[in-house]
Amino acid sequence: MDAPTFPNRMPLDGIRVLDLGQIYNGPYAGWLLAQAGADVIKVEPLRGDALRGRSREAGTIPWSMAALNQNKRGLALDLKSGAGKALLFDLARKADILLENFAPGVLDRLGCGAKELQTANPRLIYATGSGFGTTGPDRDNLAMDLTIQASSGMMSVTGPEGGSPMKAGMAVCDFLGGIHLHSAIMTALYERSVTGLGRVVEVAMVEAAVPVLTTNLAGMFENHGVPVPRRGNRHPAKAAAPYNVYECQDGYIALLCIREEHWHSVLEVIGRPELRDDPRFTDATTRAANDVAVDEIMTAWTTTLPKKQAEKAMQDAHVACAAIRDLTEIVNDPHLLGRGALFTQDHPLLGEVTLPRSPLRFHGAPLPADVPSPDLGEHSREVLADWLNLSNGEIDLLYTEGAVA
Amino acid sequence: MDAPTFPNRMPLDGIRVLDLGQIYNGPYAGWLLAQAGADVIKVEPLRGDALRGRSREAGTIPWSMAALNQNKRGLALDLKSGAGKALLFDLARKADILLENFAPGVLDRLGCGAKELQTANPRLIYATGSGFGTTGPDRDNLAMDLTIQASSGMMSVTGPEGGSPMKAGMAVCDFLGGIHLHSAIMTALYERSVTGLGRVVEVAMVEAAVPVLTTNLAGMFENHGVPVPRRGNRHPAKAAAPYNVYECQDGYIALLCIREEHWHSVLEVIGRPELRDDPRFTDATTRAANDVAVDEIMTAWTTTLPKKQAEKAMQDAHVACAAIRDLTEIVNDPHLLGRGALFTQDHPLLGEVTLPRSPLRFHGAPLPADVPSPDLGEHSREVLADWLNLSNGEIDLLYTEGAVA
Repeated sequence: MDAPTFPNRMPLDGIRVLDLGQIYNGPYAGWLLAQAGADVIKVEPLRGDALRGRSREAGTIPWSMAALNQNKRGLALDLKSGAGKALLFDLARKADILLENFAPGVLDRLGCGAKELQTANPRLIYATGSGFGTTGPDRDNLAMDLTIQASSGMMSVTGPEGGSPMKAGMAVCDFLGGIHLHSAIMTALYERSVTGLGRVVEVAMVEAAVPVLTTNLAGMFENHGVPVPRRGNRHPAKAAAPYNVYECQDGYIALLCIREEHWHSVLEVIGRPELRDDPRFTDATTRAANDVAVDEIMTAWTTTLPKKQAEKAMQDAHVACAAIRDLTEIVNDPHLLGRGALFTQDHPLLGEVTLPRSPLRFHGAPLPADVPSPDLGEHSREVLADWLNLSNGEIDLLYTEGAVA
Repeated sequence: MDAPTFPNRMPLDGIRVLDLGQIYNGPYAGWLLAQAGADVIKVEPLRGDALRGRSREAGTIPWSMAALNQNKRGLALDLKSGAGKALLFDLARKADILLENFAPGVLDRLGCGAKELQTANPRLIYATGSGFGTTGPDRDNLAMDLTIQASSGMMSVTGPEGGSPMKAGMAVCDFLGGIHLHSAIMTALYERSVTGLGRVVEVAMVEAAVPVLTTNLAGMFENHGVPVPRRGNRHPAKAAAPYNVYECQDGYIALLCIREEHWHSVLEVIGRPELRDDPRFTDATTRAANDVAVDEIMTAWTTTLPKKQAEKAMQDAHVACAAIRDLTEIVNDPHLLGRGALFTQDHPLLGEVTLPRSPLRFHGAPLPADVPSPDLGEHSREVLADWLNLSNGEIDLLYTEGAVA
């Protein structure tokens, strides 16, 4: 028997999604579904996803909107109107998945929460993403990436030694929420193939952040329940050296030694083999105790070189080392472009723009199609005809009533 | 018709997983599967997952090992022996999913790569996690969380204004890799319910990191292709103020204003309503241009209060604000404990220990069972009997040959 082959099929061909997500969290989950082949309808209020307005240039959209809403169709729907709400129920009867990341209770108050929608369609998977979840004392705390980084403990472990807590510079909690929501959705979609029933699935950003703190929680446990102080770029538990960011002529490298042989290789590369016998550096524990001295030795070498050259010398010696790249280096990276993780799109509003593709790779499937993010309501008419078989006259009436746009 | 009910069922009941994951990336994906009800076998080499050895105390394991391997059964298998390899194939014939995060090519070289295993079982989903993926020029770069934070651009956007690049203090790239791998696995498991065939799925940590940089990539695009300098805890695109971490008597709060009314509320709370008409602060743009002045005004108030009191005053006024919590506050948090996101386990090696539960919540399903992480090979005999119907004599022989432990 041969290994399986897939005749040009996308994993989620035939799956229909109502993506009521806003900003990053929900839309990221919806985008991963769309890039895997689902028919994802981005359902926006008539004023549009708040993210649309975040570009400083009038008449355009931010890069983020274009990136996270590729491969979706756009429908603008007024959920506060009776006709708009009725349309949501009609669409939900045809959908496999509805996802949203409104504040907890918003859709319930509009009369289109999980209970009502699943009563209309028991096969519907209803997915809700929020900061703190749909229950518990913190449920209604306003949740933004910055405040979740604070509440989750992430900021307490990030920042310079002896300095203030610091956030990770990217919206890590928003995206951790979104990707976990996607995982929960897919788990429920699989389960529906067994039971025939759709679940309500839920992810709280703050809960998605907790397991990510594993190293730090482990360090606290080992430290008899006391959190380990912030260490900047050094080893979080002071258990290894070299383990740091080192300055080069034109930037920085990150480098760590996992095993003793890596330290010996480092000493060869920097031309200091005699230090192998130095009692300060005989094993990871003694080196960690002398990390300032280790780092001075490393920096004496790195500051004489451009970062790419230092990186290459260490990588050639099989040491874990990487130049710190800025975002221009990322969007021009031959590896990421060559693998199709990034590509250039001709976007109707943004012109030529480098965008990501889904990090989920399905061998045997084609890469996701190049379909730009929709304008607000760009496919309203098309979706209502496709999914609900509405006539042009019926759709005209919905526009007149202001239920759609 | 009523909304669906689930008679005490877990979403992945009946699914069998071979988890060959190591450290964080693969094991996190396997753990989410186990917590959703799958029968997950942690397959370790005879020397054990390298994570086992990371505790400083002899005879025990680190907290991380206990956290990420709950609800799994342990099987120790020598894949370098003929009998051990044959056992892996026998197990793979009974499995739905095999996941691994060895360096690319390791299992291929042992003769048990995706092609061979899927030839033996075309329904098997084969999931591979790595730093840079299975193809491309950077494929064989040594990938650790620190170096992926460097290579992905994450460190370039994190750190103090005017200072050096800095890593996020948690192993964010390892976990982003693991959770995306889980998403890919679940997508393929759903697809198999349609096609009957298992896919090879792949996630590269560096690719999972790129979409997480959305705010930063959007900022660079808006800034005509030039990366926005690091801003510490201030707004990454200098588009809003207040947006920062503010010192209190006993710690810090994070606070941001999303809309004008939030700024007005802040001014009421801090007792400076007259500043509403100050021309430096009339809208987000002017406040961002005067962020140093805004932050001085904020700090004059926050430094007079304990963090919990400042947080409460702002939250009561509906401003997005959160105290920066350390890890002791996380593990004792009534919200997380009350929701069951954290719980106390009596672990055979660690004693009483607070551990996380899966962030994926399935309404109607019970919380995951409390099952401690296995010892190395703890369930070898049981799994071989369960999955393969081997007799005690056959299993004894495998022990004698050194194929299992």
